[in-house]
Amino acid sequence: MQADKQDVLKRLSYIEGHLGGIRKMVEEDKYCVDILRQTFAVRKAIEKLEALILENHLHGCVPDGIKNGREEAVIDELVQLYNLAGNR
Amino acid sequence: MQADKQDVLKRLSYIEGHLGGIRKMVEEDKYCVDILRQTFAVRKAIEKLEALILENHLHGCVPDGIKNGREEAVIDELVQLYNLAGNR
Amino acid sequence: MQADKQDVLKRLSYIEGHLGGIRKMVEEDKYCVDILRQTFAVRKAIEKLEALILENHLHGCVPDGIKNGREEAVIDELVQLYNLAGNR
Amino acid sequence: MQADKQDVLKRLSYIEGHLGGIRKMVEEDKYCVDILRQTFAVRKAIEKLEALILENHLHGCVPDGIKNGREEAVIDELVQLYNLAGNR
Repeated sequence: MQADKQDVLKRLSYIEGHLGGIRKMVEEDKYCVDILRQTFAVRKAIEKLEALILENHLHGCVPDGIKNGREEAVIDELVQLYNLAGNR
Repeated sequence: MQADKQDVLKRLSYIEGHLGGIRKMVEEDKYCVDILRQTFAVRKAIEKLEALILENHLHGCVPDGIKNGREEAVIDELVQLYNLAGNR
Repeated sequence: MQADKQDVLKRLSYIEGHLGGIRKMVEEDKYCVDILRQTFAVRKAIEKLEALILENHLHGCVPDGIKNGREEAVIDELVQLYNLAGNR
Repeated sequence: MQADKQDVLKRLSYIEGHLGGIRKMVEEDKYCVDILRQTFAVRKAIEKLEALILENHLHGCVPDGIKNGREEAVIDELVQLYNLAGNR
């Protein structure tokens, strides 16, 4: 993680704040549909964060690694990340 | 949210702790692939939390609402939740 | 499946035609990125089809079943469908 | 698409056959939950097909492209594929 570190940290703060709000809703016995709408929003925010980190990785470590003899490791990691991302 | 409130709160605590760990990894410039593995795990934990809340909702509010004249509202909410869950 | 049967069949035809196009691309050794763009489009079309069938189910069989003594079976099916939809 | 072409074609045949079965279920007015179980299975089969094609792409075209001056194009495609895969 080099570039966009501040953006990633800002998004993490936002997600943490959002989760705190969900905790309060649960503690106050809010309607479960309203809670679910918030958890979906958090999940979407995490997916955006992942897309950002992956994009950095693809533009930075992947070409660097391939040009510097780490091709097999870098590619295996990408295959693994894709499978993890899709819960496969 | 009635039943399983304690379980939901415990899962939220776990997710918050996990996010704190990710923040630390970002601050310490850890390798982005290792960070992504952790964000995928957090996303999976949120999906499990959602499944739990939805299951409560389906077993409680949905049949109650349908038997008590809120059928249209309850069904419309379910359609909306399904679409939100799939990011559609 | 009562309502929207013609719509569902039309979508199925579209998806089958799309898959035939993908088969041709594979046979002609097209660039894999172009093939993937098409499989993603097919997957999206299937997800839309599922959303349509589920919406019918939620508006028809679910309230009917709950009012006619099949509550437990109907709800258990919904929980199972949600988990299947998310590959959980 | 070079390697595993036969495997990809076999999976496409399987998916096409599966869709034909779903068409028959719809035409015969089968229970929508049973139809949805089949569409989820088809979707999963398409996701596996995509994972296979992507893995070929990552092991073949990506390192080749990066070593042969197509780095920017190859990386941009991967970012785009990741976003398409997640319906983002």
